[in-house]
Amino acid sequence: MSNKTIPTKLLLTENELPKCWYNMNAVLPEKHDPALNPATLRPCTVEEFKGPFCDELAEQEFNVTDEFIPIPEEVRDFYKMIRPSPLIRAYCLEKALGTPAEIYYKFEGNNTSGSHKLNSAIAQAYYAKKQGLTSLTTETGAGQWGTALSMACAFFGLDLTVYMVKVSAEQKPFRKTVMETYGAKVIPSPSTTTEIGKKILAEDPDTNGSLGCAISEALELAMKTPKCKYVLGSALDHVLLHQSIIGLETKTALEKYDIEPDILISCIGGGSNFGGLIAPFIKDKINGKAKYDIIAVEPASCPSLTRGKYAYDFGDTGKMTPLLKMYTLGNGFVPSANHAGGLRYHGMNPIISKLYHDGYISVNSVEQTRVFEAAVQFAKTEGILPAPESSHTIRAVIDQALKCKETGEKKKIVFCLSGTGYFDLKAYEQYNNKTMNDYIPTDEDLAKGFATIPDIPQNK
Amino acid sequence: MSNKTIPTKLLLTENELPKCWYNMNAVLPEKHDPALNPATLRPCTVEEFKGPFCDELAEQEFNVTDEFIPIPEEVRDFYKMIRPSPLIRAYCLEKALGTPAEIYYKFEGNNTSGSHKLNSAIAQAYYAKKQGLTSLTTETGAGQWGTALSMACAFFGLDLTVYMVKVSAEQKPFRKTVMETYGAKVIPSPSTTTEIGKKILAEDPDTNGSLGCAISEALELAMKTPKCKYVLGSALDHVLLHQSIIGLETKTALEKYDIEPDILISCIGGGSNFGGLIAPFIKDKINGKAKYDIIAVEPASCPSLTRGKYAYDFGDTGKMTPLLKMYTLGNGFVPSANHAGGLRYHGMNPIISKLYHDGYISVNSVEQTRVFEAAVQFAKTEGILPAPESSHTIRAVIDQALKCKETGEKKKIVFCLSGTGYFDLKAYEQYNNKTMNDYIPTDEDLAKGFATIPDIPQNK
Repeated sequence: MSNKTIPTKLLLTENELPKCWYNMNAVLPEKHDPALNPATLRPCTVEEFKGPFCDELAEQEFNVTDEFIPIPEEVRDFYKMIRPSPLIRAYCLEKALGTPAEIYYKFEGNNTSGSHKLNSAIAQAYYAKKQGLTSLTTETGAGQWGTALSMACAFFGLDLTVYMVKVSAEQKPFRKTVMETYGAKVIPSPSTTTEIGKKILAEDPDTNGSLGCAISEALELAMKTPKCKYVLGSALDHVLLHQSIIGLETKTALEKYDIEPDILISCIGGGSNFGGLIAPFIKDKINGKAKYDIIAVEPASCPSLTRGKYAYDFGDTGKMTPLLKMYTLGNGFVPSANHAGGLRYHGMNPIISKLYHDGYISVNSVEQTRVFEAAVQFAKTEGILPAPESSHTIRAVIDQALKCKETGEKKKIVFCLSGTGYFDLKAYEQYNNKTMNDYIPTDEDLAKGFATIPDIPQNK
Repeated sequence: MSNKTIPTKLLLTENELPKCWYNMNAVLPEKHDPALNPATLRPCTVEEFKGPFCDELAEQEFNVTDEFIPIPEEVRDFYKMIRPSPLIRAYCLEKALGTPAEIYYKFEGNNTSGSHKLNSAIAQAYYAKKQGLTSLTTETGAGQWGTALSMACAFFGLDLTVYMVKVSAEQKPFRKTVMETYGAKVIPSPSTTTEIGKKILAEDPDTNGSLGCAISEALELAMKTPKCKYVLGSALDHVLLHQSIIGLETKTALEKYDIEPDILISCIGGGSNFGGLIAPFIKDKINGKAKYDIIAVEPASCPSLTRGKYAYDFGDTGKMTPLLKMYTLGNGFVPSANHAGGLRYHGMNPIISKLYHDGYISVNSVEQTRVFEAAVQFAKTEGILPAPESSHTIRAVIDQALKCKETGEKKKIVFCLSGTGYFDLKAYEQYNNKTMNDYIPTDEDLAKGFATIPDIPQNK
């Protein structure tokens, strides 16, 4: 199909909105190692997961058989307000780069949460409501997940407490106001509202906080509150399941216009937008039918895949979660106070970790100032001011497109523009003022983090 | 057609994107009074308009014959990245209200400027570039227009200076960063960079600023800078022309689904989103073929239509613009420092003024706290956090829908959700904290403004 017939926005109709999510766990040739109960070091049971988590989400976490899992009608009705999201041909960026490559982005930022996070938030709030819960707790890094869950809880009439990583709360004061407008209670983390928060503050009163620490606080509150559960916005398999709607729609749109991608690429923090994008593409990658490359992009400041260890580790600093087999920088790793936002997480989703370990995906590591340079170029040509997280993707995409310019290859590059940067203006201000630095952890920094990975037989 | 077949998002394809704008001036049964040269009190010529304004925009301002004016291909190519915008059936809001009314909103906020302003900004920057200009100046109130024009100037490679109303610059610090990221120079107004700014500051050093004052500063800078013109985001007829794309798409989508509207409603400041929405609907309203009501919504704090005078007045505080026949509170009227944002303008577009004067449209006036109450209800049900300006519309829409609940009428209400509130969080913070007040000018306040309307024969 010639370029001329490809519109700028490759839209789908409401009828083309997926009716099922895609479960990568059903098609992995070799399952990833199970989560372990840290007390017994035995595989967690689904019942154990139902302690902190909603029942249905725990079931989904353990489902390794169903390739397709139906999306509840109530969730689809909400999706219809914000989805199908457009897949956009970046004609203007291509022209500005002078590249023969074709660039397509699935834009997930057209909603008030500003990102793809709403896809899972609305599902999780729905299941919580259905189970008869009255409140939820969670953590948020950059604030996108917290905002998304605030919106979802307002929609289904649930109370919500959000622990927000302190450095993000300071960088993004208005995120708090948005969450409060939707009725959520927002607490900068670490805080004195939990035992683990008090402990962390006692050890390091000036800490920037971290996602790992905020998770511990949210978990602690959920465990001591009746009719309350903990939910999270990335890292676990059920979150990637919900996010598969990104990839499913992308696949449908590409097929509708006879476009065969050469590269699927997106940024990774916990893995949810990346996992969501690649979910329905992974089967053909595994069985060798597809020729596309799948590339994850991570910040050089928090290099879980490129420099982390593949080991069992806790998802949180307080060592309260089950042990997950994943690429990790160590649960005690505190990333620098840079603007990688939601990518500042020590671990990585177990499916993504397994796929990387088995060689199905590759990874790029990018530095902050070059990331913002790409972000501004994208904003000026494609109009959208991207989130810092998504700008990591854009950096890698532009690098790929410039490579094509050298080689003359007409590669078709597909990426997920996971969110907008409307609440990340302090970062842009720093970039505009040329006061932005790059932060790359030294081997000594990493060694400190690795020392917090549990010393258990499975890690020998 | 039954409700069940109406999707949540009534989408149009790229092929359905309008190829022409709609010019209301060609169909007014009686033309509105011409702009006057304030020195001679004679009708301005198009050549006089070409002093401060771009040539093509001046031509459009004076075009009262062509009902359809072609959209340049370069502008349509940009539109394709953000348009057609969705017309959304507010199923969730209807359900929450328990109303038999059907509510549809044309959502113009899905772009980084956060509003409909980009529709005209990109057209104006295109014509400036085509004319060989190298820079533009403008004013911005809430910041939406300034952001939109920054994006448009970055796209076409033009320099831009934005005078931003001081109170807005303080309420919305991050707006400045966005504009700067797109390369614009942003100056809080009144400033010491212009003669008129210095004069206003000398008279009232603590002034909040106003759109009228910022317009004067931007005009002054344009007049003394080579290859530079002044552009503005509302009030003039050519801006409404570009915004007609809102109404044209809305009309196409409604016809596609056999929906006959009963009420068309939107907020008015200078009149651009309202005028854009109603443009292609006005002919049938004038000739009596259509049964719909057309309702404008204005803030009680800045009541140009409900309490203003229909007279010749300046568009700016510095009395530099041509005299326009319009509803006005007086060019010296300084609105209270509330959160009506872009609706805080003393005047009103001449077409809208004429339509109101001749009885084709009616007007609602709404107060700030009830506006935010509606905004939060909308955010919690429809997901989108609306701009304060657009929330005025939502207030009036909800009131109409609740009236339908009483009477049992199944009215079809169509409105323009002109923008998002992501940069207006100080206002929401005030509402959440219950520290928001209503501001209604007293008759004495209005008398002070009226005293600044020029004393000329045409106003006797």
